[in-house]
Amino acid sequence: MTAAATIDLNCDMGESFGVWRSADDEQLLEWVTSANIACGFHAGDPNVMEATTKAALQRAVAVGAHPSYPDLAGFGRRSMRVEPADLERLVLYQISALAGIVSACGGRLRHVKPHGALYNDAAQDAEKARAVARAVARLDKQLIFVGLAGSQMQAAANAAGLRFAAEAFCDRAYETDGSLRRRSLAHALHADPAAAASQALDIALHRRVTCGAANEQIEISAQTICVHGDTPGAVAIARAVRQALAGAGVLVKALD
Amino acid sequence: MTAAATIDLNCDMGESFGVWRSADDEQLLEWVTSANIACGFHAGDPNVMEATTKAALQRAVAVGAHPSYPDLAGFGRRSMRVEPADLERLVLYQISALAGIVSACGGRLRHVKPHGALYNDAAQDAEKARAVARAVARLDKQLIFVGLAGSQMQAAANAAGLRFAAEAFCDRAYETDGSLRRRSLAHALHADPAAAASQALDIALHRRVTCGAANEQIEISAQTICVHGDTPGAVAIARAVRQALAGAGVLVKALD
Amino acid sequence: MTAAATIDLNCDMGESFGVWRSADDEQLLEWVTSANIACGFHAGDPNVMEATTKAALQRAVAVGAHPSYPDLAGFGRRSMRVEPADLERLVLYQISALAGIVSACGGRLRHVKPHGALYNDAAQDAEKARAVARAVARLDKQLIFVGLAGSQMQAAANAAGLRFAAEAFCDRAYETDGSLRRRSLAHALHADPAAAASQALDIALHRRVTCGAANEQIEISAQTICVHGDTPGAVAIARAVRQALAGAGVLVKALD
Amino acid sequence: MTAAATIDLNCDMGESFGVWRSADDEQLLEWVTSANIACGFHAGDPNVMEATTKAALQRAVAVGAHPSYPDLAGFGRRSMRVEPADLERLVLYQISALAGIVSACGGRLRHVKPHGALYNDAAQDAEKARAVARAVARLDKQLIFVGLAGSQMQAAANAAGLRFAAEAFCDRAYETDGSLRRRSLAHALHADPAAAASQALDIALHRRVTCGAANEQIEISAQTICVHGDTPGAVAIARAVRQALAGAGVLVKALD
Repeated sequence: MTAAATIDLNCDMGESFGVWRSADDEQLLEWVTSANIACGFHAGDPNVMEATTKAALQRAVAVGAHPSYPDLAGFGRRSMRVEPADLERLVLYQISALAGIVSACGGRLRHVKPHGALYNDAAQDAEKARAVARAVARLDKQLIFVGLAGSQMQAAANAAGLRFAAEAFCDRAYETDGSLRRRSLAHALHADPAAAASQALDIALHRRVTCGAANEQIEISAQTICVHGDTPGAVAIARAVRQALAGAGVLVKALD
Repeated sequence: MTAAATIDLNCDMGESFGVWRSADDEQLLEWVTSANIACGFHAGDPNVMEATTKAALQRAVAVGAHPSYPDLAGFGRRSMRVEPADLERLVLYQISALAGIVSACGGRLRHVKPHGALYNDAAQDAEKARAVARAVARLDKQLIFVGLAGSQMQAAANAAGLRFAAEAFCDRAYETDGSLRRRSLAHALHADPAAAASQALDIALHRRVTCGAANEQIEISAQTICVHGDTPGAVAIARAVRQALAGAGVLVKALD
Repeated sequence: MTAAATIDLNCDMGESFGVWRSADDEQLLEWVTSANIACGFHAGDPNVMEATTKAALQRAVAVGAHPSYPDLAGFGRRSMRVEPADLERLVLYQISALAGIVSACGGRLRHVKPHGALYNDAAQDAEKARAVARAVARLDKQLIFVGLAGSQMQAAANAAGLRFAAEAFCDRAYETDGSLRRRSLAHALHADPAAAASQALDIALHRRVTCGAANEQIEISAQTICVHGDTPGAVAIARAVRQALAGAGVLVKALD
Repeated sequence: MTAAATIDLNCDMGESFGVWRSADDEQLLEWVTSANIACGFHAGDPNVMEATTKAALQRAVAVGAHPSYPDLAGFGRRSMRVEPADLERLVLYQISALAGIVSACGGRLRHVKPHGALYNDAAQDAEKARAVARAVARLDKQLIFVGLAGSQMQAAANAAGLRFAAEAFCDRAYETDGSLRRRSLAHALHADPAAAASQALDIALHRRVTCGAANEQIEISAQTICVHGDTPGAVAIARAVRQALAGAGVLVKALD
């Protein structure tokens, strides 16, 4: 008898700020197993951080930090030329702030996943990846670094002695080289819940995704699947993905 | 045989920001026993916070947090009408950020002292004082709340089950009602190191300060004496105070 | 033959920030005659400011500035103890920034209406009101100061040699003393478009509003009626108000 | 009889923020003819902007804007990947804010010189240079664009129909390819007032600078010479440069 396939479902959350609301976190939390909570630099304020943390803990969803470049106006989507040592401390500040809030709410911070431009930069730039990993390891060696499979983040996590969880995407199309199809191109997004669910099953059960005009299949290895909370219909997608995985006997649970 | 008098010397620190420098923290750290480190809301950035933390820990100076209203442009000196529940989370965010940095540097956060307008407001406003105390207690019940003797902060710390350390000032003149002489008045500041040292001795040995035109003596009870780092000649004052206390047999050591 | 009653309809706009959206400005602009555009301190960023300005100018809606305390996280709703001289410059900075953008878009800034806590403070605090008025007059003596009828803002505008436009509210209930019914009380808001339209007609045609349990009528004098963009159903309210006024022969046009 | 050589001396100013002070602007203003005033995004706040503007106008020093990426914590020295259309509006906002303040002080904004990373990026990146130029031209076609000679800024200014003033540096060493010697290398800075004065004379009188190990001379064309206010001894350098130029019969005056 083989062990059941296991996967985590993660979603970026707590991306409201002040009076401004973003995704429907409460509903998304019904379907995912890990929440990556914004730390105030691209989104989130202390009220939002605490409310999102409490909502996640109530549902036994694992709480992680979602640190960013300091850029509220740009939602952390604009790359900044920050020195690695400065970046390390920017990340340490953010994840510490959230770790304290989580602890004050009776929980424990479980993972860290960089946001937006920092995620993209750390995937490709070894120095930035190591800076993030150092910040994480200095705060707590038990934290799991969530990032792009096979990227500089994975190498940096390993070098820092951190566990790494590779992430794949169920609601984004892949190119045949394993990269994500750019959002500006047609069919970059799987807005159809069934399509996202199908790709999630492929990832969790068969370690592959189908991509390109010729429906080519490429290998992909992931311990966690990301559902984007800001995709239109995100709640429906999250539900469809969760139910499809459960229906196929995949054990959907937080990283540990 | 009576026990020696014991006192802590504290100083606000880490109040640089980006390229801008404030007090001469490195030299002040030679003479004080507790450092209240800014947390990024009125001053301080992650680089400054870590550098100040490291410099304090190297000298075995106790590290505390110095949270503020969110007001870089006003250096936290402008009162804001913030709801208590929001204030609690603003403070929790700040002290958590610093606690994580201190922990990453191999230390432990020891105390919390509100900054500027928040200090003044929490001294008088029971709701704000309780909001600060709740934030401190939720993060770590071992933290010591440093504040004005006999103020709402003391009551709030007690109610939250926190130890409270009453603070007196060696470099500021007192009025006969026990309040600080307003900075806009003449002789509000003891810029002369000898005058500050003399007042520190009065506080530590005799639990009193001399004040008013008639040199009246009033009682004051304090476990920690504040040296303002931004007074002209602050380093000379800190040195004179420390040496006078030591010379008089007072044990100068961090709160515990 | 008597001259037709004339009134302006104003609405706060441009209160999005970065990725976060607020009211449906494009649709509201179809029905109002003046837009009070946020200047980046409580909401609005340069992109939002320019887009809102262009949308208003295209529809010949008069563009005004909506300056605030510096408080993105609190949406400018938290009072701050700012020195009048500092406040004057905070306002001058904001209205100058918008004035330049409006000019670059081929228009001209027409009025200034303080936002949120600054509006409330300037209504009651003569020093703050004068600080705002000085900033407005220093930038351009042709600007119209929009504020609460009979408040300190009116006195300050007069003293500064500025035209003043008194504002009344169609979507908020009044108390019999002429103050607005607090939002925390029942029936504070007229969410029903017909009720708002009826109150707008009373203001524009009869210079009165009906208020209190006994339907008492009080006098009110206003040159402009505010429609809140963040009331649920704001577009329907704005349309109903505009159509009711037009139907009753009231000339709805921008201040001049 | 030949016309006298003419040159402008410019200096970045108003780079204090809140309680934090930077250069000694009052003294520098005695020796320069143009002030580039920070606009609040990398330094400067409305108080600093107005005080610096007034101090410059009192001495008949030409006031220009010194816009930046939004980065107080990094002093505008960190490049950001900002879309050109967004950059245009970030610059328009900043220069408009200062233009209004200058106008309120009885003066007129005369020029715009980008700051730090934005200066460097706009020198090399045609799209960013054009975005800055568009913002300047949209606010006021009479404004002079100050930037690096022969850079993308010059081309963009020309394309936008703006006058361009090429800038050279008297306190920085040049490489033989015309670039500035990197600050991290030895002898990058002329901290000796005599050396700076000598280089200023070479630029103003002979349109050349001496550089490299072999004292090679390269051509340089400039209408304005920058004195860095944050160089140690900046006031002495500014005085020496001004006096040397005047002594050699060079007419030192603002751009027009």
